[in-house]
Amino acid sequence: MDAPPELPAFEPTPAQRSAAARIMARCDELAALSSLPDGVYRSYLTKEHARCNARVSGWLEDAGLAAWQDAAGNLCGRLAAPGPGPHRTLLLGSHLDTVRNAGKYDGILGVLLALEAMAALRAAGEALPFHVDLLGFGDEEGARFGTTLLGSRAVAGSWEPAWFDLRDGDGTTLGDALAAFGCDPANIGRASRAGEDLVGYLEVHIEQGPVLEDNNQPLGVVPSIAGARRFRVRVSGRAGHAGTVPMNMRQDALVAAAGAVHLVERIAERFEIVATVGQLRCYPGAPNVIPGDCEFSVDIRAGRDRTRDLAVEALQDEIGRLTASRGMRVSWEETHRATAVECASWLQRVLEDAVLALGLSPVSIVSGAGHDAMSLAPITDVGMLFVRCAGGISHHPAEAVTEEDVAAALAALELTLRALAAREGEENP
Amino acid sequence: MDAPPELPAFEPTPAQRSAAARIMARCDELAALSSLPDGVYRSYLTKEHARCNARVSGWLEDAGLAAWQDAAGNLCGRLAAPGPGPHRTLLLGSHLDTVRNAGKYDGILGVLLALEAMAALRAAGEALPFHVDLLGFGDEEGARFGTTLLGSRAVAGSWEPAWFDLRDGDGTTLGDALAAFGCDPANIGRASRAGEDLVGYLEVHIEQGPVLEDNNQPLGVVPSIAGARRFRVRVSGRAGHAGTVPMNMRQDALVAAAGAVHLVERIAERFEIVATVGQLRCYPGAPNVIPGDCEFSVDIRAGRDRTRDLAVEALQDEIGRLTASRGMRVSWEETHRATAVECASWLQRVLEDAVLALGLSPVSIVSGAGHDAMSLAPITDVGMLFVRCAGGISHHPAEAVTEEDVAAALAALELTLRALAAREGEENP
Repeated sequence: MDAPPELPAFEPTPAQRSAAARIMARCDELAALSSLPDGVYRSYLTKEHARCNARVSGWLEDAGLAAWQDAAGNLCGRLAAPGPGPHRTLLLGSHLDTVRNAGKYDGILGVLLALEAMAALRAAGEALPFHVDLLGFGDEEGARFGTTLLGSRAVAGSWEPAWFDLRDGDGTTLGDALAAFGCDPANIGRASRAGEDLVGYLEVHIEQGPVLEDNNQPLGVVPSIAGARRFRVRVSGRAGHAGTVPMNMRQDALVAAAGAVHLVERIAERFEIVATVGQLRCYPGAPNVIPGDCEFSVDIRAGRDRTRDLAVEALQDEIGRLTASRGMRVSWEETHRATAVECASWLQRVLEDAVLALGLSPVSIVSGAGHDAMSLAPITDVGMLFVRCAGGISHHPAEAVTEEDVAAALAALELTLRALAAREGEENP
Repeated sequence: MDAPPELPAFEPTPAQRSAAARIMARCDELAALSSLPDGVYRSYLTKEHARCNARVSGWLEDAGLAAWQDAAGNLCGRLAAPGPGPHRTLLLGSHLDTVRNAGKYDGILGVLLALEAMAALRAAGEALPFHVDLLGFGDEEGARFGTTLLGSRAVAGSWEPAWFDLRDGDGTTLGDALAAFGCDPANIGRASRAGEDLVGYLEVHIEQGPVLEDNNQPLGVVPSIAGARRFRVRVSGRAGHAGTVPMNMRQDALVAAAGAVHLVERIAERFEIVATVGQLRCYPGAPNVIPGDCEFSVDIRAGRDRTRDLAVEALQDEIGRLTASRGMRVSWEETHRATAVECASWLQRVLEDAVLALGLSPVSIVSGAGHDAMSLAPITDVGMLFVRCAGGISHHPAEAVTEEDVAAALAALELTLRALAAREGEENP
């Protein structure tokens, strides 16, 4: 999809330029709120989390926006609709926690972009027909308690009581950690939002992949967040002495597994999805022993669950035939399954129009990574805007975005908010 | 090679039958001389080794044969040539040590077969024109000090002084262990034999592979002991998120390594040798991360070093082209190299003739495993006879041979000794 030639190339306003510079500086500032001396690590309900919430809260207030912390420790802000209600609410969010040894932008960038867009509209005195609420989720990565998306699941009302008993590496339960953070676990339900009150949920996030860079575009629009299935596969042949068993008498499990690795690649290409073998081990695993068994992981992701499942079926069939042809056995154990989440097509169109209006070309990118939008999708329509990141690298100190791309994302988000306001006006005159 | 149809099927003599039964019982008896309560493990210069030497020594003396222990702790026996010398000496040998959790026959069987053949000739009053010396090597497997073939290297005069400083798992040096065993390290040279005094060296050993079983034959003759080269190969691509990097933008090191595994198999088939990838690891090695690096072992063995080296060249060339075609780098580190050892063609013929005379078909099998004969080859002509073992299994409690096959091996060895005696008579009338 190329940008229509008649559109002017994107040029941010001076306000957007200075906002983008502020976002870059604030990403640096929040990166310093870390539990590691030489790296970024900020997990849920820690003192770094509290300091981060306080810092962002101050920035909201500086911009004249209301700020508070919800019952799950999520940082919240509001650009309130003027006049008497009831008003619906548009949610803008992403997460403020990080993985261990993280970059500065994953999650954080989306929160700070939303804050600046809200501040810009308020500064311009533009009245919106709905509240705009900022959500800075306290946990998306799951680094502390092993379960991801805790913050957004609280907001979506899908928090599970059993989670209070999850323990971190020090043995502290999630319930105790919430209480220590000043949140009463009994009140967790107060963090949840009712779907009927919501306009939708929008999230800006770094792409975490190389597609925008490869397309030479700063912004992408997400049609769906991929559904995933993960398997542990074991191929069983016959071990033997590497020197004494002729090639034609072998049942080498690694040779069969190597064929399976190629089938994984070929099936992914055929179904236009992604599939990966990230782990592989041979048993017994000595240089002078023919592998008798081989175990490997298979991770398959697709924008639609049906596609993913057809690909799994085809893969199991072909690997089964391959191993049988070599007289070997294969077993599959499913270790993970996540449902694909479709972004609302009307929100995709609004986001695409905003990007096009900037003279840019919105690249459509199925998100292979999980996002807070997955939690919100059951209660409201969701949309996601991706920002180009250097080399597609994330979850790594080398994570990087440019100030120019951040300005473009901010401009697109501002246009999106105005378009949604106009649309809300038409629908609810 | 089929047995000529005019030959009668092999039928052992009553003496050979009872000798074979004795060998089977003695293999059981020696298996009980173990440092493990529930498995066979007898390593160099241990108390089990001493008890084993004493036991075999007693069996030699029972048969009217001289017995002693040499300066390296090898158990020796002699069927002396009658009359005044000087006489040359034919060496018959194999090893009495085992790997941890071993079977009962690897090495042991060859020693006990030699003992019975010598005993049979003595009992029959057959005078040989050379001494026949039995060598029960104290170390072939290298289980205790990490360096293999210590016993036979002492006999071949290729013991290296640095070995005295090798340490076992408890920190005991080989020098101290020898002294504790009653061997003066300063005298290690006394274990060595002079090549000009030797007729040759013959070793009977279980095949440790499935070729005899596959050919439905009990005995094989070894044309050579394979030369080996071993490498650690590293393929470097680019790691990435398994969900966010499209298939056509990946540099997946495992996909390239899987191609390399297939090339190893294909090259081995093309050169009619054996080649094995026994170890393979992905880095970082997580189910949701595209492998950025992959490291694997390659073990290549061939009856002739030239063939082996041509195969290595071809493999390096093809794997280099494969990785380059995917934009990746590959590096090779050689971790092991052993020269092929040719068995003397005249000894091969004598062994083949003996097997044929039994009505059996001598299968020619390049030995992919190392043997004591490798140590002796620099000082004298060597020959090896292989005995079928169940499933080609060795270095495992399931190692098994049949009493019938042992009787056939004994008969072949007796015929071989007589043929060598006749030949020595012709050459040195």
